[in-house]
Order: sequence, then C-alpha cells, then structure tokens
Amino acid sequence: MWKGEDQTYMQQAIALAYKGFYSTKPNPAVGCVLVKDDKVIGQGWHHKAGQPHAEKEALADALNNAQDVSGSTAYVTLEPCSHHGRTPPCSDALIDAGVSRVVVAMQDPNPLVGGNGIKRLQNAGIDVQVGLLEKEAYELNHGFLHRMRTGLPYVRLKMASSLDGRTAMANGESQWITGADSRVEVHKMRAHAGAVIIGIGTILADDPSMTVRLDEALLAEMNLSAEEANPIRVVLDPNLSLPMQAKMLALPGRTIVMTSKETVENSLERVEEFHRHGVELVAVAAQDDKLDIESVLHYLADEEQVNDVMVESGAIVAGAFVESGFVNEIHAFVAPVLMGDQAKPMFVLPSVTNMNDKLQFSVTDISTFGDDIRMILKPKRHLKSN
Amino acid sequence: MWKGEDQTYMQQAIALAYKGFYSTKPNPAVGCVLVKDDKVIGQGWHHKAGQPHAEKEALADALNNAQDVSGSTAYVTLEPCSHHGRTPPCSDALIDAGVSRVVVAMQDPNPLVGGNGIKRLQNAGIDVQVGLLEKEAYELNHGFLHRMRTGLPYVRLKMASSLDGRTAMANGESQWITGADSRVEVHKMRAHAGAVIIGIGTILADDPSMTVRLDEALLAEMNLSAEEANPIRVVLDPNLSLPMQAKMLALPGRTIVMTSKETVENSLERVEEFHRHGVELVAVAAQDDKLDIESVLHYLADEEQVNDVMVESGAIVAGAFVESGFVNEIHAFVAPVLMGDQAKPMFVLPSVTNMNDKLQFSVTDISTFGDDIRMILKPKRHLKSN
Repeated sequence: MWKGEDQTYMQQAIALAYKGFYSTKPNPAVGCVLVKDDKVIGQGWHHKAGQPHAEKEALADALNNAQDVSGSTAYVTLEPCSHHGRTPPCSDALIDAGVSRVVVAMQDPNPLVGGNGIKRLQNAGIDVQVGLLEKEAYELNHGFLHRMRTGLPYVRLKMASSLDGRTAMANGESQWITGADSRVEVHKMRAHAGAVIIGIGTILADDPSMTVRLDEALLAEMNLSAEEANPIRVVLDPNLSLPMQAKMLALPGRTIVMTSKETVENSLERVEEFHRHGVELVAVAAQDDKLDIESVLHYLADEEQVNDVMVESGAIVAGAFVESGFVNEIHAFVAPVLMGDQAKPMFVLPSVTNMNDKLQFSVTDISTFGDDIRMILKPKRHLKSN
Repeated sequence: MWKGEDQTYMQQAIALAYKGFYSTKPNPAVGCVLVKDDKVIGQGWHHKAGQPHAEKEALADALNNAQDVSGSTAYVTLEPCSHHGRTPPCSDALIDAGVSRVVVAMQDPNPLVGGNGIKRLQNAGIDVQVGLLEKEAYELNHGFLHRMRTGLPYVRLKMASSLDGRTAMANGESQWITGADSRVEVHKMRAHAGAVIIGIGTILADDPSMTVRLDEALLAEMNLSAEEANPIRVVLDPNLSLPMQAKMLALPGRTIVMTSKETVENSLERVEEFHRHGVELVAVAAQDDKLDIESVLHYLADEEQVNDVMVESGAIVAGAFVESGFVNEIHAFVAPVLMGDQAKPMFVLPSVTNMNDKLQFSVTDISTFGDDIRMILKPKRHLKSN
C-alpha cells in the first residue's frame, strides 16, 4: 500500500509537526509535506491556535516557491479538517489546489472532523490513504487525542524524589533533590501542559511560583514566548485557604482556584475577597473535604480545553490522584541520594494496607537526566480514563 | 605493543575465567589460553580453591590434545603465581613448558605474588607484557582485588523496594515486592558473596533462610553444588537475641553470630546456650549497642578470607551500613509499585537531618529484571574503603 518513499515523507511531516508540540494547544500539532515528482515542493506546520493549519502553510510555502501543486501528494500527520472553524476547511484547500493523492497518518477523533475530511477528499476524486506511522502520529498529540476520545485530559503526575522515596526533609527543605537537567525537563513538561495542578498544602508550605523558567533560546526552539509558556495553574483548595499574598497570584499566567461548592456557599466573605483580588474561582463537587478529581479534570477538559494536565504536588494530593484512577502516567525523577526515614514520603495512600492493595504500574521508559533517573510508569489497573 | 589478535585471545581468557566467577572464592577467578601459530592449543580456568590454577589447566589441556607448548604464547587474566601455595607456582610451570611469551591482563595485588611471578618469567627469558584488558580483568575479581588492596571485603548492599521507597507493609508483609527475575538475580548475588550480613531485627521479624535457591541447571552453569552455593550467613546480634529455633540455624551452610565483647562477658549463660547448639559466635567491638561495622568486616576479611560481602537487611542495619562509609555499592531493585507512607522505609539515617547531609551516589548501571529496575549506585563521598 505504501510506496518506499511514503514513510520518509511522513516522517518529515511528523518532524515538522513537532515544532508545534509546545505551542498549538488546545489544537493538535500537525505537519504537512507536499511532494511532486519525488521532490518536496512545500512544507508547513501548525504554529498555534488561530493561525493557519499545516496544510495551508504547506500550500502557501509551495506558492511562495513558485511550485505547481496540481498532481502532487500531500503527507499530513492528522486528517485534514472539514469544518469551518477559525479557518476554512483544509480538505477544501487541498482539493482546490489540485492535490491528487493525500496520505494521512491518522484519522481525527475530533467529532467535528471524524472521517469527514477524508470523505470530502475522496468525493473530490483524490486518492486517500490512512494509517501510515499512525503510532508516531498518536504520540505527537497524546493529550489531545485522549481528550477527544474520553472527554478528559491526559494526566501526568510528576514526582521528584530520592532513591529512598522522599520528597523533602522533615524540616520542609527540598531544594534541590534532583539536578538541573531534571528541572529543565520538568519545566518543559509544564510548558507542554495546558494546566498544572497543585495542592493547597504545597502552596502553604513552599509558596512555589509554578511558572515555566527556561532560557530564551530553548523557548524559541519550542516556539513559545515566556508568557505563553505558562500553563494554567490550578490550585486545589477545598477550604479557600490560599493567602492573597501567594507568589503565583502575582506572576504571569492564569491561576484558577478550585474549591468545593459547599465552601463557596458557606464562605461568602472569603469568596468576596478572592473576587476582589481578581482570582478566578471554580466550585466543583467534593466529599469529606476533598475535591472530586473527576470533576476537576472534566472542568479543565470541558471549559478550558486542556489536553494535558500535569500534577505537581505533595504526598496527599499525589496519593489521591493515583488512587482516583485518573493518572495516566507517573514521571518519576529519582535522584541517586538517600534522605532517610524522617524525610517526607512520596504518596499517602489510605487504600493500601496490605500487599494485595499495592498499586501496580508498568515502566514504559527509563532515561537519565544528569545524575538522575527518570522513569515513566503507566498504571496496570486502577485506571479509569484510558 | 599489542598484536591485533592479542585482544581476542585475552577476551577468550576472560570468558574462561568467568566460568569460575561463583566457585573460586576465596581465590580469584582466572583464565588462561595458550596460542601457537595463531591457533589455540590449550585453555584452562581455575575451578575452585585447592584445584589446579588456570595456567596448569591450560598446559594439561594442551598435553591432552598432543600439542607442543614450546614457543607458544600464554594469555593469562592475572599474573601467574610465584609462591608455593596449595600448588607449585604457575610461573615455573610456564617456564618448564617452554612458553616463549606471556601476556598478562593485570599484576596480582596479593602481597605473596606482587610482581614476582612476572619477574620470574622475565628472568627465564620469557617476553612478558602486562595490562591488556586490565579493566575487564579487574571487574572479574572486584572483591578479591579490593580485599588485597584495602584489607576489607567489597560490600554490596541489596535493597528491594517499591517506587516510593518501601520495603514492607506496616503489618510486615513483604512477599513479594520485586518479581521472580529480580529474586533470581539476588540469589546469584548471594552465591557470589562470601558472606551475607543480616540484622537480628529482620530475623526476629521474618525468620528468613538466606540460602541460595536456584535451579540445578543454573547452579551447574555457575559451577556450584547446592551446598557450596550458600555464603556464610552473618547475623549481627548485639544482645544475643537469636532464637535457637531460627530457621537458618538448621539449614545447609554456616551461620556466624556476631555480638559485642561486652555481651559475651555479661551473658555467659546465653553464650553457653549458643555453644551447646553448635552456633558459631564471634565477639567484635561495639558502641551504644551497635556492632562496629569496620570490625565486622575486618573479621570477615582476615579470619574468613571473604572477598565479597552482601548486606541484606532492614532499614536500621542498611542505614548504619551506608552511614558507616563501608558500602561500596548499593544494588537497588525497584518494583514499579506504590505502597504508601504507612509502609516501612528503606533506610534509617540518624545523621541526615537537612539537605546538606543527604548521602550522594552515582548511578553506574541501570538494568531491568522482569518488571523491575535494578540500579547500581556507588557513594560519592562518605566512603571509607575504596
């Protein structure tokens, strides 16, 4: 089905798409390569929401190079859109340009597209082939595709610990367990996430900024300005304990404070104070003073179009998340240091009291960052959103 | 200096030596290859203490194959011995056989050999070259060479834990955190060790057997019988609390109970009881009810010729060992499971109360065993014996 060079050109399209890996949210990252007579005549990638899609970028690039697109093959990493969103549909643009063959890595699970783009192309007599490097194309937009499929964001829980599973000294000291290379990777994870979730306990203890701090050259590579880089900071604050002096409230980027509906009803003065300080407040379901994690995630998916959530928190919130079954991956950065039994634990897990209860994972990646080891783990069971 | 084929033959000699990796203790593992006219005419390896050295095995092999050894080159992974031990010196045997060139991977640090074997060969007019694949030859006999150099055994601390650094549930349950593949590797480590050290706390809690349990085929590959496989079990028991019903006392292999000199003086009845049950008892220095780790290790090196010590213990003894500075490597088997903050810690470290105190290591190896990850770590500082 695939010609020998098809794979090469699709790989090129995927590489182009990755240029938008950090910048296209909530849109998916997409790349497109136009090929005629075994020569690339145009290429494009989606830069950010509101800007042209990859196919249009590639067509414009070809035009710019004075190339005739008619009769060419388009390699696209995601099904061309068929709906009039912020821009007219890409499938029409390819048809109008006279493209004769379209190779698509994967169908768009977005219900607004869902095979219609492909049909539209086929109805126009274009030879369409779907599924080349589908797995690679899936990886590219893991969170987006997950949200389209499940209605929930893809949740990555980041932990930084010592080899003996400790995240801070008993006195609260935690800077730095992991090294500079790990911290850069964590900031890249933040920049990729649509939202980063943190518990009120960590804010009261550490007053963290939760911003993306990466050098300009790296941000430029990621196609991000310093301000765009910051994900929404989501504070889980069931009792509205967040001090108005919290550092993150004064920093670039949005902070959303999530609390319980009950608290909002019973603490009108406190709510008033939040509003007076211009702090965004969202009420979600809660039980026993704990916010309902599914409601938190649904809010972020539905109201904020968040594809990728990163959880960065202490042992209680981290434990609640893994116990909830809504964590898709743990990114565990382990430093080769020992901190001892008095230091703070990684996870509070009330549900685990004997060996049968232990939460089981599969290791899907082991990498090193400086002196540290980063393991990516996926739950074996207990997963409610996959 | 080295001819192209020298490396190949020395690699062959090292591979031969590895056949004795588990079986030669307290002797080093050694391999020898005899080459004449670009053809291997004899090969040998040291099987176990009291049996012929590698050089003699290789000479006998050549004789057996009706090969004329005169004018051949011998590749030996360790300097041929020059002293009359259990067998006459190998250097003499090579000289008598008319070998004309000897390539040696490394000089023997044993003060009884220490360059004399090489000199003896040179004095007989043999061309001797030293240092080919020295690093590989060193790895082969890490523990032996360490003991020769420092007077102490090489100490490997084995830990099996969850990702969140827990070794047992609060109720004591710990079977099994790590998987079957990790456990096989642990039993191989035991088989390689001259002694395995365990704290009295673990025995009172778990009554472990600490024997090597590997299937016959694997033991045969390791050149071991089931009985020979067992290292000396060393119980650190400052107050002589070991019950005479402890499982390990009835199992094949030796158990040495180490206690303090003070306890021996003050608990004569208890000492009597140990003797009556035929339990080997050793008194070492102690302070504040804790046995002095250096004294424990010196005893094992000096009196038992132990090259490699494996520590398998709970958080208190493990912590005392890493704090002592006498642990050369941690072998951390980490299972991709979470057990929560109520489960038992890996290390009790009274000396670590702030981030500056944390014990720092370098990761020298990352491997997977089934679902588990095994990291080998070496201390960055705090090391008293290296």
